[in-house]
Amino acid sequence: MRLRETLSDLNPTDIAEFLEEADKKDLPVVFRILPKELAAEVFVQMDSDMQQHLIESFSDSELKDVIDELFMDDMVNIIEEMPASVAKRILKQTNAKTRQMINKLLAYPDTCAGSIMTTEYINIKKSMTVDEAFNRIRKNAVDTEAIYTCYVTDRGRKLLGVVTVRELLLSYSDTLIEDIMDTNIISAGTLDDREEVVNLFERYDLYTLPIVDTENRLVGVITVDDAIDVMQEEASEDIEKMAAILPSEKSYLKTGVFSTFKSRIPWLLFLMISATFTGAIISSFEDRLSKWIGLIAFIPMLMGTGGNSGSQSSVTIIRALSLGDIDFKDIWRVIWKELRVAVICGIVLGAVNFVKLYLVDYLILKSFDEGVLLLEMTAVSLTLVFVVIIAKLVGSVLPIIAKKLGFDPAVMASPLVTTILDALSLLIYFSIAILLLM
Amino acid sequence: MRLRETLSDLNPTDIAEFLEEADKKDLPVVFRILPKELAAEVFVQMDSDMQQHLIESFSDSELKDVIDELFMDDMVNIIEEMPASVAKRILKQTNAKTRQMINKLLAYPDTCAGSIMTTEYINIKKSMTVDEAFNRIRKNAVDTEAIYTCYVTDRGRKLLGVVTVRELLLSYSDTLIEDIMDTNIISAGTLDDREEVVNLFERYDLYTLPIVDTENRLVGVITVDDAIDVMQEEASEDIEKMAAILPSEKSYLKTGVFSTFKSRIPWLLFLMISATFTGAIISSFEDRLSKWIGLIAFIPMLMGTGGNSGSQSSVTIIRALSLGDIDFKDIWRVIWKELRVAVICGIVLGAVNFVKLYLVDYLILKSFDEGVLLLEMTAVSLTLVFVVIIAKLVGSVLPIIAKKLGFDPAVMASPLVTTILDALSLLIYFSIAILLLM
Repeated sequence: MRLRETLSDLNPTDIAEFLEEADKKDLPVVFRILPKELAAEVFVQMDSDMQQHLIESFSDSELKDVIDELFMDDMVNIIEEMPASVAKRILKQTNAKTRQMINKLLAYPDTCAGSIMTTEYINIKKSMTVDEAFNRIRKNAVDTEAIYTCYVTDRGRKLLGVVTVRELLLSYSDTLIEDIMDTNIISAGTLDDREEVVNLFERYDLYTLPIVDTENRLVGVITVDDAIDVMQEEASEDIEKMAAILPSEKSYLKTGVFSTFKSRIPWLLFLMISATFTGAIISSFEDRLSKWIGLIAFIPMLMGTGGNSGSQSSVTIIRALSLGDIDFKDIWRVIWKELRVAVICGIVLGAVNFVKLYLVDYLILKSFDEGVLLLEMTAVSLTLVFVVIIAKLVGSVLPIIAKKLGFDPAVMASPLVTTILDALSLLIYFSIAILLLM
Repeated sequence: MRLRETLSDLNPTDIAEFLEEADKKDLPVVFRILPKELAAEVFVQMDSDMQQHLIESFSDSELKDVIDELFMDDMVNIIEEMPASVAKRILKQTNAKTRQMINKLLAYPDTCAGSIMTTEYINIKKSMTVDEAFNRIRKNAVDTEAIYTCYVTDRGRKLLGVVTVRELLLSYSDTLIEDIMDTNIISAGTLDDREEVVNLFERYDLYTLPIVDTENRLVGVITVDDAIDVMQEEASEDIEKMAAILPSEKSYLKTGVFSTFKSRIPWLLFLMISATFTGAIISSFEDRLSKWIGLIAFIPMLMGTGGNSGSQSSVTIIRALSLGDIDFKDIWRVIWKELRVAVICGIVLGAVNFVKLYLVDYLILKSFDEGVLLLEMTAVSLTLVFVVIIAKLVGSVLPIIAKKLGFDPAVMASPLVTTILDALSLLIYFSIAILLLM
């Protein structure tokens, strides 16, 4: 019983982590020691492999005990991760009404608000008094995650207003809800994009957000802890896509070697093969290049600077799109801004490069013949100016257009933009070189 | 009065946005229309330029009205953004105790937990009853942002336990706090890194987090809405650093052209100049290259694949470090995992490339002479295998070591890793080419 006491003093998240590191076959034994309610909380925090392992070791009545303690949204999350046979066993332990609700929630696509909401919330009528509202909260608090905001609906479940526990505490016990409810409600639709929905939490400092159907009937709420998970997932996903990785759901150490390989190889293959274009451009200039072989040494610098300039812009724009700071209507403001930034960056880089070529490459490294010095220096520096300008324009416009066309802007980020810019940089470089030198 | 009614129906965030788009000189007039409490909420949501403009138009008594309604953490945030003269004017309107508190909060470095906490929270004693706790909440609710968690402290302000309003609602009114308080408290220190602190909100699904000094005395709390802001800021910062941009605080459209230029040019300059190394490597092989000019066409593909492989790893590791999924002790697990992923990726890429070279470059583009076909194909493909392995190892280890040494891992991301890998890729390529072909 010592273990039981020690564990009961810990936080569910920490217990779950402790159990994950313990021997897998001891898991059911240790788990059975936990008090019922705590056991369910720990269960929610475990990863899906462990949950499955536990469920498989449970008797039907043990399984029912855990399930009865779960909040609706957690239950749906768990069922989503389980193989069909385990999911079926879980559903068998729930009553018909819960089962129907779960199936409805499971039907929402992963990317929409409906998929992260819970159907348990405090529902009150506008004719209730503050005291009656408190009683309603007390009655439902055990089964409800979000109890600090009450939702006022009419008979048709239409959302009329919200009242927070703060307002209830500050009102007289016989005050009518309709006199204190806030009718200016921030809500979202079940099928709204979940990324845009969680941005509302940041914008309006919300604890919960009501989710309504197309007829403004309340169907569920999203709680701030789930909104935070989605924010962090979406940020991680954007970061992964920007780095040419297919997004994964598990954390780094929990993803297997083969899964990691599978998330990384597609873009590497695509980008490797698309680099055939840059290769072909170089090959087609090969004969002329052999006379000016000194120019080749600057290809990596020009392509690198073009790529970096472009990804600075694309990444900034993608993040701003994700956070809802800009959208398609801002495209001209973005272009005008990026153009000015690009011209200043291009001129500064070109000028510094010109001086660097003279001081480092000519005087120290002695890479230039004196005869062509000025022309080669001009060709390289001029290319730099144009490459930076084109890079910043392509990098900023592409993600906005991608989003408008319904593609994922993050996929348009660094690697794809870089590949396009690599080819453009070379074409600009060789054209300027031919113009000036040949 | 029509405008007053219309505005009062809106959310403070939306009113602030509406005002930002209105004419700046009308701002004080419209602002004065708002009811006092709403005016303060709108004020908090405005950007600092507008706040400053408004403060400068306020009389001292108007300023005091707004300031009296502000929560402590919002006031500190506003003062931080103001020029010294305006900050002084604000401080003059507060009483000595508040002023002392503000100065203490202002002294915390921006990167630590103390800088985002508020000093207003519900403080109760363990000898109180549930009813007395509710009275305390009612008395303080107007001036306190975080009222759903009460903090139990002893006479020396040492934190003993927490009680949520949920638990209070579910307890009898004469129950003693000490019988229901949770003594297993998740807390953080004032000087803890704010990024690590906000991760606790995600880990433990918190609404508020108590912040204690080195002697475990409660000094403030962080609320979930501020934690969310920090999470999004930290993610944006990481994304910016990964894309070789110095992080900016304002949103994209609110940042001026020159500020944007200043945040982008340092890394572009640094990376441009450091590309001198790759240029020098190419130059030093120039004489031998002129005989094998066909090899040059593959440089962009090899450098690109190396860069992409490396940034896939570095970006994944940097994000995992930020979220607290891995730390320094995991370095060997990371290396072992990345090595296996890299070997599979390298072999697949090398093999696909070998076939592609034959089908596309030899049969279609006719870039190869038959005599050296096999050797050149082998050289390119073999380089690919080694480049991918080295890229993934460097890309994953560098951020972990950077963090251990106290540098920012995000700065070690794509661009810097890419520059190092560009040079390594070339050296590997030329070494293998010389070995096989010369």
